[in-house]
Amino acid sequence: MNYDLAIIGGGPAGYTAAEKAGKAGLKTVIFEKNNLGGVCLNEGCIPTKTLLYSAKTYSNALHAGKYGVAASDVSADIAKIAARKGKVVRKLVLGIKSKLTAAGVEIVAGEARIVDKNTVECNGQTYTCARMIVCTGSATFIPPIDGIGTVPYWTHRDALDCKALPQSLAIVGGGVIGMEFAAYFSTLGTKVTVIEMMDEIIGTMDSEIAAALRAEYAKRGVTFLLQTRVTAVRNGDEGITVDYETADGAGSVTAEKLLMSVGRRPVTTGFGLENLGLATDDRRRIAVDKHMMSSVEGVYVCGDLNGNSLLAHTAVREAEVAVNHILNLDDEMSYAAIPGVVYTNPEVASVGMTAAQAAAAGIECREAKLPMAFSGRFVAENEGVNGICKVVIGNDGKILGAHVLGNPASEIITLAGIAITMGLTAEQWARTVFPHPTVGEIFKEAVS
Amino acid sequence: MNYDLAIIGGGPAGYTAAEKAGKAGLKTVIFEKNNLGGVCLNEGCIPTKTLLYSAKTYSNALHAGKYGVAASDVSADIAKIAARKGKVVRKLVLGIKSKLTAAGVEIVAGEARIVDKNTVECNGQTYTCARMIVCTGSATFIPPIDGIGTVPYWTHRDALDCKALPQSLAIVGGGVIGMEFAAYFSTLGTKVTVIEMMDEIIGTMDSEIAAALRAEYAKRGVTFLLQTRVTAVRNGDEGITVDYETADGAGSVTAEKLLMSVGRRPVTTGFGLENLGLATDDRRRIAVDKHMMSSVEGVYVCGDLNGNSLLAHTAVREAEVAVNHILNLDDEMSYAAIPGVVYTNPEVASVGMTAAQAAAAGIECREAKLPMAFSGRFVAENEGVNGICKVVIGNDGKILGAHVLGNPASEIITLAGIAITMGLTAEQWARTVFPHPTVGEIFKEAVS
Repeated sequence: MNYDLAIIGGGPAGYTAAEKAGKAGLKTVIFEKNNLGGVCLNEGCIPTKTLLYSAKTYSNALHAGKYGVAASDVSADIAKIAARKGKVVRKLVLGIKSKLTAAGVEIVAGEARIVDKNTVECNGQTYTCARMIVCTGSATFIPPIDGIGTVPYWTHRDALDCKALPQSLAIVGGGVIGMEFAAYFSTLGTKVTVIEMMDEIIGTMDSEIAAALRAEYAKRGVTFLLQTRVTAVRNGDEGITVDYETADGAGSVTAEKLLMSVGRRPVTTGFGLENLGLATDDRRRIAVDKHMMSSVEGVYVCGDLNGNSLLAHTAVREAEVAVNHILNLDDEMSYAAIPGVVYTNPEVASVGMTAAQAAAAGIECREAKLPMAFSGRFVAENEGVNGICKVVIGNDGKILGAHVLGNPASEIITLAGIAITMGLTAEQWARTVFPHPTVGEIFKEAVS
Repeated sequence: MNYDLAIIGGGPAGYTAAEKAGKAGLKTVIFEKNNLGGVCLNEGCIPTKTLLYSAKTYSNALHAGKYGVAASDVSADIAKIAARKGKVVRKLVLGIKSKLTAAGVEIVAGEARIVDKNTVECNGQTYTCARMIVCTGSATFIPPIDGIGTVPYWTHRDALDCKALPQSLAIVGGGVIGMEFAAYFSTLGTKVTVIEMMDEIIGTMDSEIAAALRAEYAKRGVTFLLQTRVTAVRNGDEGITVDYETADGAGSVTAEKLLMSVGRRPVTTGFGLENLGLATDDRRRIAVDKHMMSSVEGVYVCGDLNGNSLLAHTAVREAEVAVNHILNLDDEMSYAAIPGVVYTNPEVASVGMTAAQAAAAGIECREAKLPMAFSGRFVAENEGVNGICKVVIGNDGKILGAHVLGNPASEIITLAGIAITMGLTAEQWARTVFPHPTVGEIFKEAVS
């Protein structure tokens, strides 16, 4: 069977590329060994947001009195929440399948093996292709901690499927995944301890905002151990014990469950990638050009596999760029305005550079900063809560970055992303008419 | 006392202009006879959103079971809700006051009277000014219906301060204000009837979206009488009776309370406006140029008073344009991308042209339309609810308008507003990296 394009992996990069290529008339085949949607849809972005929305619903009902509303016996049924999560995921997987089918894409369920740049084998069949997009994603990285093989630790997958609330949970890794699960479980009543090796949680975010998020969850009972290195894990009488070291000495924490969320790594073996002989860069990542093409003509590498950003929306954009290149359309990848979101409550969202990053890059800038309470709608909808909005502005007036703590940061951050992408100055951006009252107006207020 | 700039009216146009002018070093005085913030802050945008958020909290608690959360005895205390509304408003009024003070603006509490284009009197004092911005806003229009003077009808002001939930409420006028109060009172349990003269509610919005919003509230028990003309109102045994006529004949509805929300009209008398001798346009509105300057040099007319759009964010932008003109900065007013929002639940938001408006203007276009369920985050957070996203795209590929039914439409609509303002094509717009998963992604999905 001959194809214009073979796509290895059905996550955000893969399904985006497949739909776009199919719609454009390319004879396209996509291989997926598990479910379409990849980690993002099946065990990442979407299921976490489903759980977190239930947690938010629980929290809002619990604190409804702040808004003149009373409710009693507020409780969360974690098994029902997990079941609903499964339903949401199944619905969206079907949605992707039907979009690909409508675009004329052939979907092959099975584990593909790359033979060479024009040949893929799957389920005993051979597929030939003119071009190939490889987007097999990443997997949870479990560091080689002493004793890790002897304890029943969780990855995000187990945490998502949890059907009985643990009394206590130790989370190793205070990045985005760790913090989202800390938010979920602590909101529902679990005693959570977050252990982070760096000096702050959600490392790449603005440090003031990260500290404010941490302070908020600390107030709600989450324990944070920063600059803390895990030295060993072991089974204890009352759960799993995590031994750690800090500058002040050693210590340990015991919890009913242990979640390992240190990070993710590209999956580069087990499917014949080595047969392509792709060049790597100085950081041992697969080298790609601005069209996402590898060192081998006609072979594109998108998504987590290339290790550039490990975010679903980066993968989506990379896939568009790759297909546009195949279609001879003018386009290229930019990483200048990739938003990052932490779906805690309040949310944190960020795009472009922080003031610290700009300074480190030798770019002169100023920071326009406002409490979120400068937005009337934020005040109307957030009783007794505040937040932070920062906009980083270059000396030429251009927007370099924006960083927000406060709901719905995830939805408004794209307003700054467009400004960065379009190269707008603060003045140009502020001439946009923001509807009143909205939380998004905070950007206009901050830069005016 | 001599000023560079005198501002008559402390609503969104007035306080925006005052802060901007003060910061720029203009010696500025602002006159306000009631509270700073105007109708918008004191009895419009902000208080309604405060009430509506309480209603949403109530509704979410009531339906929490859809998300695996249980709550019993859910109830709303409308007196507490009204009290919180007052607190939010007071906080924001103080915020405006402190911003103006920080900008060096003189705030005069009192009823100003314009003597001529360089002279204002207030509280027995005379103020002279080089320039003047007049922004006295609008007032509720009460149509001369038979019997209107004999019944104790509500305006939005009474509805906002309502401390005991009425059993039933008749709302005359199904525009934005009418629908927001219909949403508030019906959610809390009032039997609501909306009487609208036109063939659809929220008249200027996309008609399919308006009909879908109406269908949703009809399902929740609101009665809609469209193409229905009110002929008389009278006191009945069980409240106020509204007599009406439709194409099918006459009828009547009786409710405990009656809210009049037919519309608003500019306030042009009572403060010496006539002393300026401003020219009017062919629709009898005060004529202004693209810098918001009236026919009299140095006199600017912003906000509801000029009758252009009667929205707070329009007033804000007009005020910026006027002050920029005073400061000799290049800027001009455009009404091409003014968003409109209806803060029902779900929200409706709209910016730019509908397909029908484009067609009427002779502009060829296509409509990219998707159910909101194409957004994974929407599905995660909206169990059993759908919505509509429409993007109107010109034949040259440019974004002409966007129309959304579904939360948080109000916050994401600005993404389309920027696209229209910047003259982006659908292709350029879709190259923005939207964080995943967000509801805002629906725009990218719709136009890709």
